[in-house]
Formats: sequence, C-alpha cells, structure tokens
Amino acid sequence: MVTGHVFIATSLDGFIARENGDIDWLLKHDQAGEDHGYDDFIGDIDVIVMGRGTYEAVRSMGQWFYTRPVLVLSAQLAQQEVPSELKGKVRFLDKSPGKAMAMLASEGARRAYVDGGRIIQSFLELDMISDMVITRVPILLGSGRPLFGADPRDVALAHKGTRSFPSGLVQSHYEVVK
Amino acid sequence: MVTGHVFIATSLDGFIARENGDIDWLLKHDQAGEDHGYDDFIGDIDVIVMGRGTYEAVRSMGQWFYTRPVLVLSAQLAQQEVPSELKGKVRFLDKSPGKAMAMLASEGARRAYVDGGRIIQSFLELDMISDMVITRVPILLGSGRPLFGADPRDVALAHKGTRSFPSGLVQSHYEVVK
Repeated sequence: MVTGHVFIATSLDGFIARENGDIDWLLKHDQAGEDHGYDDFIGDIDVIVMGRGTYEAVRSMGQWFYTRPVLVLSAQLAQQEVPSELKGKVRFLDKSPGKAMAMLASEGARRAYVDGGRIIQSFLELDMISDMVITRVPILLGSGRPLFGADPRDVALAHKGTRSFPSGLVQSHYEVVK
Repeated sequence: MVTGHVFIATSLDGFIARENGDIDWLLKHDQAGEDHGYDDFIGDIDVIVMGRGTYEAVRSMGQWFYTRPVLVLSAQLAQQEVPSELKGKVRFLDKSPGKAMAMLASEGARRAYVDGGRIIQSFLELDMISDMVITRVPILLGSGRPLFGADPRDVALAHKGTRSFPSGLVQSHYEVVK
C-alpha cells in the first residue's frame, strides 16, 4: 500500500498561488539559509503525484527541480508524449487516484508526495492522505488557488508539531485521523 | 486613536463557523485547563466591535459572555431598542467602521477587539487592524463562514510568535505591516 503525503506552503488565507499561478509572494519569503525540511521530507518519498495544473506550473518555471519520479494524472496529457528532456523522470497517466496508487504499490512504492491544490483535495476526499506539512506564509492574498476544497465531510486532524522560522513562516505537521 | 485587534479561532481551512453558524467543532477542542490567552487579551481591551451576524450568533447562545462594552455596527439593528437585559452593555450603531472608531476614540477608548468574519474583513480592507491572534483548530470543515475575504490588495503580516497546545490548537500572533 502506498501512503499519500503533503508538503506545501500557503498564504495565511489559504492560497497556494495567485489566480494566475504566480508564487512571487512565496519565493520572497524563502530566505536563504532557512531549512524548512523539504530535503528531509523528499528523502523518504518514492514517487510524486500531481495534476496537470501543477505540472504545467512547474514546467513554466523552466527548471525541473523534482528529484523523484513524477506521475502526472491527466486524461489530456496522457494522450501526449512526455517531452524528451523529461523521459524517465515523468509519466502521464489517465487513471483515477485509487487506480494510480494501486499501480504505484504494484511497482513497489511506499510513500507518495501528493502535490498541487486540486489533486490534494481529491486525495483528501478519498482518504488517501496520511499526513500534511503545511507552511504558512505571513501574507493575505485575498484571492488565488486554494489549498483546500469543498469536501462535504469534516476531516479530523491530529497536530504532531509546529515550528516557526525567522522569516515568519510557520510550519505545522498534521496526521489525518482515519 | 483606537487600534483594532483580532482574537479568533478558525478551522485549518479557514472557517470561523459552519454555514449555519455552528461552532460545535470549536467547542469540542476547547479543552478544560488550557489557557489560550483570551483573558490576557481581553484585559487590555476597552471596547468590542462586531456586526449583526456575530451579535445574533452570540445572543442565540443564551449567555452574554462579553465583559467589555460592545458596539454592534448594523443599520438594521440601529433602528431597534437594545434588549433590556443588555442595556448598558451593548449599543447599536449605524456608522461606517471609520466613523465608529472615531467616535470610540472621542470617548477615550484605545484598543478595540474586532470580532466576527465580515467585520474583520471590512476593518482589514480599511487598514484598521493592528494585529491578529489566530488559533487554528485541527479540522477541515470543507465549507462555512470564512475568516478572510476577497481583499483586492496583498496584506503583509509580521509573525510575532506561535505556540501550540496539547489539544492540537496552534495559535499565531501577526502584526499587520502598514
């Protein structure tokens, strides 16, 4: 079985990007010398799962910074070839989250990093997220792409710890209570 | 001059109440014996400013727990008498936030507790909030009444400190950067 894990930053009002995808406000707070734990987190991850929105946003940055195999769940992209420079690093797949995770399990993966707002929402609704590390940036954006969506159920969380940084970032770790 | 101060709890996805006003999820996490700092906060407050929604929600709880004079900004309520049991504790006023704060200043108030989602949003948009203490409850509600609204500007914040509690509540203090 593969477990889903979230590691993401949001504005204090819960947005992961502006409406146009811009994360300038986040990069501005990403001070040199502060270790927010991403390397430790990714060190224990076998595979990264994302949707088309996140894939295209990362592609538009011009640099592919993921150091783990990436699976992009997208019916639209699954009809295309993976760009040659990403061959062996990225796969496009037209499968539901459940079937994708079953496929990853059959390949031997244990821990999947689930990245991007809409796919995190889908995985949460399907009870496929084990825990979340959420880093709050001290800014209100007023609008943008929200981290969380309109899940009709309550999702209970267990707080595992919080730390803050000189930059003003506050990072909390929550387990999803099953 | 009167400064505006926020002290409020939200779900991890940013709601201060369910759509119907229910705060059962909050009360469930309000464990006996945990001091979340409300008494210290209110000890330095001269007056409480709220809108009709918050006033009516508190009234419906059947117990008036505010220990400071309350000003309710509402054109609708300002046409009514204050209920006899709240005379001397509550005033209804049909004024803008700016004029209400000027009136409070002329009465000698220095620090106002601004309570309730929509009025906090109005005061933030008008640059009339100095700082906010926001307590995160470890639950996702999926929908409800949001703390923050669609302010068209970025609002920069300075993180002053964060503490967490055995109940899982995480409380952060932010100053609004002018």
